[in-house]
Amino acid sequence: MFDIIAFDADDTLWQNESLYSETQARLAKVLAPYLDGVDVDARLYETESRNIPYFGYGIKSFTLSMIETAIALTEGRVTSADIQQIIDFAKAMIDTPTQLLDGVVETVVQVAATHTLMLITKGDLLDQQRKLDRSGLAEHFSHIEIVAEKTEETYRTILLHYKVDAARFLMVGNSLKSDVLPVVAIGGQAVYIPHAMTWEHERVDPADIQHARYFEMAHISELPGLVEKLMQNQEI
Amino acid sequence: MFDIIAFDADDTLWQNESLYSETQARLAKVLAPYLDGVDVDARLYETESRNIPYFGYGIKSFTLSMIETAIALTEGRVTSADIQQIIDFAKAMIDTPTQLLDGVVETVVQVAATHTLMLITKGDLLDQQRKLDRSGLAEHFSHIEIVAEKTEETYRTILLHYKVDAARFLMVGNSLKSDVLPVVAIGGQAVYIPHAMTWEHERVDPADIQHARYFEMAHISELPGLVEKLMQNQEI
Repeated sequence: MFDIIAFDADDTLWQNESLYSETQARLAKVLAPYLDGVDVDARLYETESRNIPYFGYGIKSFTLSMIETAIALTEGRVTSADIQQIIDFAKAMIDTPTQLLDGVVETVVQVAATHTLMLITKGDLLDQQRKLDRSGLAEHFSHIEIVAEKTEETYRTILLHYKVDAARFLMVGNSLKSDVLPVVAIGGQAVYIPHAMTWEHERVDPADIQHARYFEMAHISELPGLVEKLMQNQEI
Repeated sequence: MFDIIAFDADDTLWQNESLYSETQARLAKVLAPYLDGVDVDARLYETESRNIPYFGYGIKSFTLSMIETAIALTEGRVTSADIQQIIDFAKAMIDTPTQLLDGVVETVVQVAATHTLMLITKGDLLDQQRKLDRSGLAEHFSHIEIVAEKTEETYRTILLHYKVDAARFLMVGNSLKSDVLPVVAIGGQAVYIPHAMTWEHERVDPADIQHARYFEMAHISELPGLVEKLMQNQEI
């Protein structure tokens, strides 16, 4: 049925957004003495959005945006000791052990028994590789693709490279914007597994998903059942 | 003769180290009023070396190290306006047009006529892709590999992935440490084209190259001649 089943990584296989969100809370705490009830999160998100074309995704990009936000919001009053603290937050994020989501190991092992698995993740090269190495899951993935953005073009390029028909490609992930819609748009199949925390940047307009056909499940452990049904060509 | 001819990018196809070196000079200028004849470059290199395991290579990593160095060297006296200036240096680096080295276009076009070309570069995903897009050379490369480190393991993985024998693989680059020695060590062939500027981190112990067999040329335009000779199996 599928030549390749591909998984997103952050918040599909392991916790990620929670780490960013905890760090944002630490930033707000550092800046609190300088500010009077300013919404640090909202300003940080503005800075991040503006910086993505320059710095892309990942912890380093996030850190540079935290520093810029701290300087702007405090009108330059933030001390360099506090800026060093922000850089230390980044190192702590990088040092945080990879926390696999519930049911991931069993699911990946089960699906890998019948299919070639690929990991497709965006973000920082070194950091994503490090998380995969620490996850203990690397041996189950035949192919790893770390990409700058997940667009239709990105998926088209990957399928062309691996000589796989879109119809025989299944993508599994927690982001409608990055894992589901672009895959469906190029004729592939996709499974959407919502995560409790989704970064604002990954949210989509409900109108965009109205006509998209994809599978949705509450938990990754439902995946082997779906794949089996699809392989038997049964009605879903 | 070769199934794949691979090129390094930074300082092999386009200028790179000069951009870092110019930015270091700007950093030294920003810090001069705080310091009394301190060697900013040496301290920055120490910080960079310590941070590579965390942040890897590329402009964002370099920028975080510049900020840490500025804070440490000034003992916290550096103003946040000056730190913002350092972040703006990073954006200016990213905005700098890709400056191809002399003879690169002609050489790449000529070698691409008879061989499958690959680009293997380390550093930041987004930044390297942007430089390639801007270079106008992308169409000549069948495969792009952006990697976190260039070790023997990295090259082994790439060759395995593309099902290419090491003996039928030629790597061209300006770094003995990253482009030449690991390739030769796994049985591949390599061409070393020294660049006037080499980052300290890429330097190797002369003892390490004593027994390594590789080709060396002063200019990339000599490459098509070498490849042709090797294809004709002539004595070099």
